[in-house]
Amino acid sequence: MDKIKSLTGMLDLYDDGDNTSLPAKLFYLEEKIKDIFKSYKLDEIRTPVLEDTNLFIRSVGGASDIVNKEIYSFNDRNDKGIALRPEGTAGVIRSIVEKKLDQSNHKLWYMGPMWRYERPQKGRYRQFNQAGVEILGISEGAPEIEMISIICSIITEFNLENCTIKINHLGTQKSKESFCNALVGFLAPYKESLDEKDQHRLEKNPLRVLDSKNTNTQEILKNAPSIKEFLEPSALNLLNSIKDEFSDICDIEIDYSLVRGLDYYSGFVFEAVSSNLGAQDSFLGGGRYDQLCEKLGGKSLPSIGMAIGLERFAELIEVNNLLGKVISFIVVTSNLEPKAYKIAHQLRSLNKDIVLDIHLSEGSLKAKLRKANKNNSHYAIIIGEEELKNNTAVIKPLRNELEEQRTVSIDDLNSFFKSM
Amino acid sequence: MDKIKSLTGMLDLYDDGDNTSLPAKLFYLEEKIKDIFKSYKLDEIRTPVLEDTNLFIRSVGGASDIVNKEIYSFNDRNDKGIALRPEGTAGVIRSIVEKKLDQSNHKLWYMGPMWRYERPQKGRYRQFNQAGVEILGISEGAPEIEMISIICSIITEFNLENCTIKINHLGTQKSKESFCNALVGFLAPYKESLDEKDQHRLEKNPLRVLDSKNTNTQEILKNAPSIKEFLEPSALNLLNSIKDEFSDICDIEIDYSLVRGLDYYSGFVFEAVSSNLGAQDSFLGGGRYDQLCEKLGGKSLPSIGMAIGLERFAELIEVNNLLGKVISFIVVTSNLEPKAYKIAHQLRSLNKDIVLDIHLSEGSLKAKLRKANKNNSHYAIIIGEEELKNNTAVIKPLRNELEEQRTVSIDDLNSFFKSM
Repeated sequence: MDKIKSLTGMLDLYDDGDNTSLPAKLFYLEEKIKDIFKSYKLDEIRTPVLEDTNLFIRSVGGASDIVNKEIYSFNDRNDKGIALRPEGTAGVIRSIVEKKLDQSNHKLWYMGPMWRYERPQKGRYRQFNQAGVEILGISEGAPEIEMISIICSIITEFNLENCTIKINHLGTQKSKESFCNALVGFLAPYKESLDEKDQHRLEKNPLRVLDSKNTNTQEILKNAPSIKEFLEPSALNLLNSIKDEFSDICDIEIDYSLVRGLDYYSGFVFEAVSSNLGAQDSFLGGGRYDQLCEKLGGKSLPSIGMAIGLERFAELIEVNNLLGKVISFIVVTSNLEPKAYKIAHQLRSLNKDIVLDIHLSEGSLKAKLRKANKNNSHYAIIIGEEELKNNTAVIKPLRNELEEQRTVSIDDLNSFFKSM
Repeated sequence: MDKIKSLTGMLDLYDDGDNTSLPAKLFYLEEKIKDIFKSYKLDEIRTPVLEDTNLFIRSVGGASDIVNKEIYSFNDRNDKGIALRPEGTAGVIRSIVEKKLDQSNHKLWYMGPMWRYERPQKGRYRQFNQAGVEILGISEGAPEIEMISIICSIITEFNLENCTIKINHLGTQKSKESFCNALVGFLAPYKESLDEKDQHRLEKNPLRVLDSKNTNTQEILKNAPSIKEFLEPSALNLLNSIKDEFSDICDIEIDYSLVRGLDYYSGFVFEAVSSNLGAQDSFLGGGRYDQLCEKLGGKSLPSIGMAIGLERFAELIEVNNLLGKVISFIVVTSNLEPKAYKIAHQLRSLNKDIVLDIHLSEGSLKAKLRKANKNNSHYAIIIGEEELKNNTAVIKPLRNELEEQRTVSIDDLNSFFKSM
């Protein structure tokens, strides 16, 4: 019979114990990042995978690449436009508005799969994972510092090397407009020499020209006005004081050309990059989005958020926690002996920190011991027909050559297991 | 501006600290169930949310309710039939076949959202969550006992009351056929008095008539032949020995009318029910499916699996772990003082077991202390302008009336935090 294949760009993540694999790294970092979020007293929020497509057109922006080219959308049975979420923020704000929680403060985290219908490339998938933080309801100031603190905690926790946190400020609505006008004025004479993409950006969202990867554009931009000249003193002060306070913990750089891809950012923006990642060096980013909630029909809710690309992040880390102590439980009898497995069940209740790996398949003792060694088991507990009859078990040490194999009563086995 | 709503039957799960809420229960039980799975040395597998619709037609069965009426499917841009997975097993087996791992043994767990396009009812959603276990590559025997052991561990861990594990055996292909024939023969004279649904079942999959909720059908079935009369001694022996060994841990009942809804089950089947759940009393179920892998184009891979409906399960439990120790960190200065927040950042690195809740919004000390009490904080650390100038902080106990508030140096604050 022919096989059914997985869909293009959608990975199966199976952690079979190889700590260098993407699944092992992903599952490992997810747990650690969750713990960091919880230690900041962030609350978990989980919004549905599917949303009304209009949510993303209105939030991320109809002119953005995400909505124009990349959104994974379809029409449902009632011909309604449905999208698999391409990012996490829009759903969170939609949810807060719908629950009428948009007049209070929230410190939130989320983690889960997202989708983009782009052509899969190396390290980019149609289904991928993001974790994010949203701090809602509080104006510029302390939330910015909290975000940087969280990012520093993550970088420190994973001992990431060659990382830089880039920060910038897009100004107030007024100063942003002044800067935009100055930038458009500066670029006008060069318009014809820009590539199509940058010309389009110049028309729709001029700040995005600063993100251009085109070397010609980059050359032109060297003499462009800098947003620095347009920023209010309080904005410059925020950037400088964050750099001053946190530079001894992580490398922090004020980058006045940092603008971020999403339309809804204003004020403080940031990005974490690693030179270990090559050309697409960003693995985390975010910024303030004080207008988004109103755009989605809610109250004015000043907010700041960040998201981490987990597959990208996984490229930077090493898994170095091993499982708790593993003990292999081996039954070697000619018939099925439920009584032997019941002994294993009772051991578990005595010590929940032990991973008890019961070998379920048939096979020789030798083959099972080989598997136990491969699993890094500390001990094998072996029960054969003789042991079952006598109410005993064999404890065989696998990691300590000086310790001898011994036969013990089930009571002694219980004590041994409990005290491990 | 008008609001954008969430889609029908798709919940926002926001755990804002109310331990009696569905999100709080769901997040809590997910963590505990994961820990149980890991202690059995099951490996995590995470397959994509989207699959080729044919996968479910071929696995779950084109005649099943799941595929006929409930599957959440759509056509993608290339007019290919795509489905949001309605259950977890088919994707796991598809993945194992695709990775050519269908000639070895695997002990797997998964957890995540599933979708069904049914009309939402109380406690049933279009996006819902399941956790599951699949033991692949091993014939009847030890894997059956391992499944029951896992279920007992879950029931024990959550102190579930009024629960019963029902077990049954659908026999070999041959004995299943004999029983089916006997059942069809017995029901033939009653055919006209069965309702439409049961008539349909009788034609397509006669065993499912045993699942009927129709009281008339139930009455008729009282005199029907029992599968017990058709089972091989080894099957009866398995049922009896599992009941004998595990009945002192959980209530176990052999129920010869238990058939389970999915077409692919054969051999041992089981279900856990709770009388606390009302009419739809099952929260966990599964069985052996030795033919599924071949049906999906793979090798012969004897397998057994189970799935837990997490929203249903959540109705049965109470959340009784509280967060680790919470300390509130309160800065009361007229200007933003990054230096004060830096102190908090450094405290975190000294003791990762403490949840440090920094109050980011502006507001009076009184309001912040009220919030700290509401959060069950053990202490508040307070830094005002005076403290910042003198390099000190105030430690205010919130849960112990005998302990007095004190002003300490930052060094002493660090020691205090570290030793908590």
